[in-house]
Amino acid sequence: MRIRAFEDADWPAVYTIIREVIDGGETYAYDPDWTEQECRQVWVGPAPSITVVAVGDDGTILGTAHSGPNRPARGSHVSTASFMVSSKARGQGVGRALGLYVLDWARSAGYHGMQFNAVVDTNTVAVKLWHSLGFETIGIVPEAFDSLAHGLVGLHVMYQKF
Amino acid sequence: MRIRAFEDADWPAVYTIIREVIDGGETYAYDPDWTEQECRQVWVGPAPSITVVAVGDDGTILGTAHSGPNRPARGSHVSTASFMVSSKARGQGVGRALGLYVLDWARSAGYHGMQFNAVVDTNTVAVKLWHSLGFETIGIVPEAFDSLAHGLVGLHVMYQKF
Repeated sequence: MRIRAFEDADWPAVYTIIREVIDGGETYAYDPDWTEQECRQVWVGPAPSITVVAVGDDGTILGTAHSGPNRPARGSHVSTASFMVSSKARGQGVGRALGLYVLDWARSAGYHGMQFNAVVDTNTVAVKLWHSLGFETIGIVPEAFDSLAHGLVGLHVMYQKF
Repeated sequence: MRIRAFEDADWPAVYTIIREVIDGGETYAYDPDWTEQECRQVWVGPAPSITVVAVGDDGTILGTAHSGPNRPARGSHVSTASFMVSSKARGQGVGRALGLYVLDWARSAGYHGMQFNAVVDTNTVAVKLWHSLGFETIGIVPEAFDSLAHGLVGLHVMYQKF
């Protein structure tokens, strides 16, 4: 597996992962009614944000992430990031590899830290992964996510200072 | 003072307040380079969001607020809101009146609660006001706001369950 910058030719594979994650209803408060173009605008933002893909040894897109400022202007020194992994590639360390890559990028780009705004509490793989990579849960907004399988569950706000 | 729905004719007065607040650099991570049209898109969103104004007895616009879902789809049962008061109208209870109005609206609209994502820690008037109106601080993201007067200060994530 290697991580590299997103290229236009990656979009169909990335979009397949985004749709799979949205339709799963477990991890993202993204709108199922978004068009393909709206999904692309959310995931592939303009600079200074970056979008990357994790590519398997056979060239398959295994996962994707994007990162950039969490807020404009007076909040732009804190980064944020989002991650999606194909269901076919779970348990192979793809999320961890993407996380390490994005954290390294954000440090190098001069951000002061990274904030996650909405990590679903029942997404225990993600919660454990981010804690293991140095994030702390600042607080949990109770019942803020309507999980397809679990009903109303909390959303973690996480932060890591660089 | 009364609170009513925003009308197109209110925009010049509302924009004056927005610019004053942005340029003050103390309370919002909004981009000073946003055009007037971009400011309007941020403050006057499409339904189901609402925008309201606080109007003084002489017809002056004293403050403004907008409210709507904090997230799309599986997060859309939690509301959020933003508030700005003209510097000429501080200390008159305008923020409190707008807060009570918006909370009442969000309850009536069926939201489960209201979340504030970024209340600046040194904006003590706002922090005290929201606590007095039933919000609790879920957590403070450290040094996430670059205050013009105070440097790097925390951002409160607040929540109130209805």
